[in-house]
Amino acid sequence: MSFTDSLLERNAALWERMLDHPFLLQTRDGVISDKDFSTWMRQDYLFVEAAIPMMGILIAKAPPAHRKVLTDAVGALFDELALFQERAAAAGVDMKNLTPSFTCHAYIQYLMAAVYQGSYAEGFTVLYAGEKAYHESWKVVQAGLDPASKWTPFVQNWAGDAFAGYVAFLEQEMNVLAEAAGPDERNRMAELFEYSVRYEIAFWEMALTATTWPGMDRNDPR
Amino acid sequence: MSFTDSLLERNAALWERMLDHPFLLQTRDGVISDKDFSTWMRQDYLFVEAAIPMMGILIAKAPPAHRKVLTDAVGALFDELALFQERAAAAGVDMKNLTPSFTCHAYIQYLMAAVYQGSYAEGFTVLYAGEKAYHESWKVVQAGLDPASKWTPFVQNWAGDAFAGYVAFLEQEMNVLAEAAGPDERNRMAELFEYSVRYEIAFWEMALTATTWPGMDRNDPR
Amino acid sequence: MSFTDSLLERNAALWERMLDHPFLLQTRDGVISDKDFSTWMRQDYLFVEAAIPMMGILIAKAPPAHRKVLTDAVGALFDELALFQERAAAAGVDMKNLTPSFTCHAYIQYLMAAVYQGSYAEGFTVLYAGEKAYHESWKVVQAGLDPASKWTPFVQNWAGDAFAGYVAFLEQEMNVLAEAAGPDERNRMAELFEYSVRYEIAFWEMALTATTWPGMDRNDPR
Amino acid sequence: MSFTDSLLERNAALWERMLDHPFLLQTRDGVISDKDFSTWMRQDYLFVEAAIPMMGILIAKAPPAHRKVLTDAVGALFDELALFQERAAAAGVDMKNLTPSFTCHAYIQYLMAAVYQGSYAEGFTVLYAGEKAYHESWKVVQAGLDPASKWTPFVQNWAGDAFAGYVAFLEQEMNVLAEAAGPDERNRMAELFEYSVRYEIAFWEMALTATTWPGMDRNDPR
Repeated sequence: MSFTDSLLERNAALWERMLDHPFLLQTRDGVISDKDFSTWMRQDYLFVEAAIPMMGILIAKAPPAHRKVLTDAVGALFDELALFQERAAAAGVDMKNLTPSFTCHAYIQYLMAAVYQGSYAEGFTVLYAGEKAYHESWKVVQAGLDPASKWTPFVQNWAGDAFAGYVAFLEQEMNVLAEAAGPDERNRMAELFEYSVRYEIAFWEMALTATTWPGMDRNDPR
Repeated sequence: MSFTDSLLERNAALWERMLDHPFLLQTRDGVISDKDFSTWMRQDYLFVEAAIPMMGILIAKAPPAHRKVLTDAVGALFDELALFQERAAAAGVDMKNLTPSFTCHAYIQYLMAAVYQGSYAEGFTVLYAGEKAYHESWKVVQAGLDPASKWTPFVQNWAGDAFAGYVAFLEQEMNVLAEAAGPDERNRMAELFEYSVRYEIAFWEMALTATTWPGMDRNDPR
Repeated sequence: MSFTDSLLERNAALWERMLDHPFLLQTRDGVISDKDFSTWMRQDYLFVEAAIPMMGILIAKAPPAHRKVLTDAVGALFDELALFQERAAAAGVDMKNLTPSFTCHAYIQYLMAAVYQGSYAEGFTVLYAGEKAYHESWKVVQAGLDPASKWTPFVQNWAGDAFAGYVAFLEQEMNVLAEAAGPDERNRMAELFEYSVRYEIAFWEMALTATTWPGMDRNDPR
Repeated sequence: MSFTDSLLERNAALWERMLDHPFLLQTRDGVISDKDFSTWMRQDYLFVEAAIPMMGILIAKAPPAHRKVLTDAVGALFDELALFQERAAAAGVDMKNLTPSFTCHAYIQYLMAAVYQGSYAEGFTVLYAGEKAYHESWKVVQAGLDPASKWTPFVQNWAGDAFAGYVAFLEQEMNVLAEAAGPDERNRMAELFEYSVRYEIAFWEMALTATTWPGMDRNDPR
């Protein structure tokens, strides 16, 4: 079994929890409120922005053969930011003065810490995990969303063929990297994959419940 | 006004929310459950362990005059870990198979990302913020805790004179660093200070509510 | 006086030594040997390759407004590598099994250490210094080289208008960054600028003298 | 054969070149000039100082079981700096206004780039290589130096039993790390080991010849 298949098998319950998240199912069924979808848009815009520095570190640690594709992927992130802005303008979503929720902030810190601290293969794992998760999450939405929906361009971006090809490339390279890795590094890659899925679930949860920083809604105890 | 005074003034509401957190007040009043205190002990053990890598990066970026004191501070972290183990053994707290909660994991990622990504002054800010917060938080506990309590050694560690002297040194150096910083760097230091306080509040909240990873207690929606 | 003007003024003797280097003058006058020029081509190919990881770290630390231009600059580095390969094929220069000379290796280490260890403004300084140096160095060559020379495409690459515009942008941003920096950071930027010029001189010297690793040509002393 | 034995075997010619370097042989035979030895003292002081940041990054990437020994090793570096100052005072060596030679600067950059960019095992390799090289180099000196020499304390520091034990520990852990590494990482470790030996040779060469920055002794060509 390939390394990525073993990761998906070992984390099947988490992966299913992610794909079954009500945010995705409500979006698929066209019943998500504009308010909830806007929460996700604002937070994910911050997340996509923060993915660019992460890609920079990956470029720095990449073997020469990966540098070009990672650089092109940064270009795709700029396009994604433009897509958010275009959709926000079309749908009347306010994208000004964005501040990260706890979960968004935490996920970004996790990405940066992983790529700075880890080997290239370990950093690559959080890239693969995030892109694979987004591809499959938006495939869930694609299965039911009315093509005339104002949110369809997001489906096209992450569930479409171009992104599918990119994810397939990442998956293949993950397996090459895992093949060349020793047992300790492979264990760290597996651990990072699981954490990434946990952060992905947390992100959908935050989008739907608009949870912000812990302890801030507690009444003053005195 | 010194830079650190201005940080504390600007974040006074957050700081008060931290010091008034029920976890601290219940510990002060001797009414915290062993279960809740054990949650904190297990998670904070992981946090102290993770502070050692953070200190490594700070040593790497420090001006020569700070290297010795930061190296000694790593030694103090080893002593703190021993204190946790000793108290856990004395109080029957299980410290085996520790796994980080979402909040603990996130705070650790934030520390690592801040020191890798930021300048020395920016990284130093998250050290100062965390140590200042712990000193004052345990001063709150000290104000009421029965000296015969089994948790008193934690009070002695963070509310005691040695730690007070360390925090005073960090505060003084924070102001030196802020003095030498340009306006953009000073703004980033201020932003990091606020985030640190938010993570501190989140940590007490997690300890008291035993919250783990978001979205994991949601029933399967199908 | 702008910060970059002050850097150039303070390092005028070093800068002149660089621009007057016999490697440049011999290339300008069409008298450089193919062997010497090939030494430079092989070593500079390795250097350009190694500039890509450096740019990755800069992208990671850059303010949002700089990310796109730095990403585009990585694209330009891929084009430069293609230029080297094309010229090598045209001129019969062997580009296989390249290994870095001491000076080339050292300069690469310096770039990576500077961007990992320093603030964005400090890392940006080594980028600016290297690009400014190359632009002016190849302007020296441009002043005399026969346009029909097989080395003219290198002149066009670094002495041409597109590169001039890029260097002008870097210079302007250097001054913006220096303006926002505190005195300590500005001093470190100035120190890095001087080291960069020293490494540039060392690089031309290595190209002309084909010096490799120190101590390797010493007879066994026994 | 252990990994470290294979490294030493593969690099036997380089290793011998290092141990046979006239700087070491002249010091062993008591014929090194005070001027030459002072050059080494000044440059090596800068190098030891710069090893502290390198150790910080290693601490950050180390598995928990290595953190304490690396932290203690930083303490030993502070002691080494004190030894240099004490010997300099005793022997009348001027240690003020130290500036790094090209080779010293380059070696420092190499250390920092290796630990920031590489995995822990890769960074550990440059630590092991440097300490192993110094231990064996000073064993060469020890074999002949008059115990009454003013340079004997350096011999005692690096050729003595405590340091021998430290190097033996590093060697054992190198082999554990290599055992757990995959083939690509092991190749990078081997490459770093060779580069480290090359930098060690370059350092002795610089000390003996007082070479400074390349291209600076060239007459103005016009």
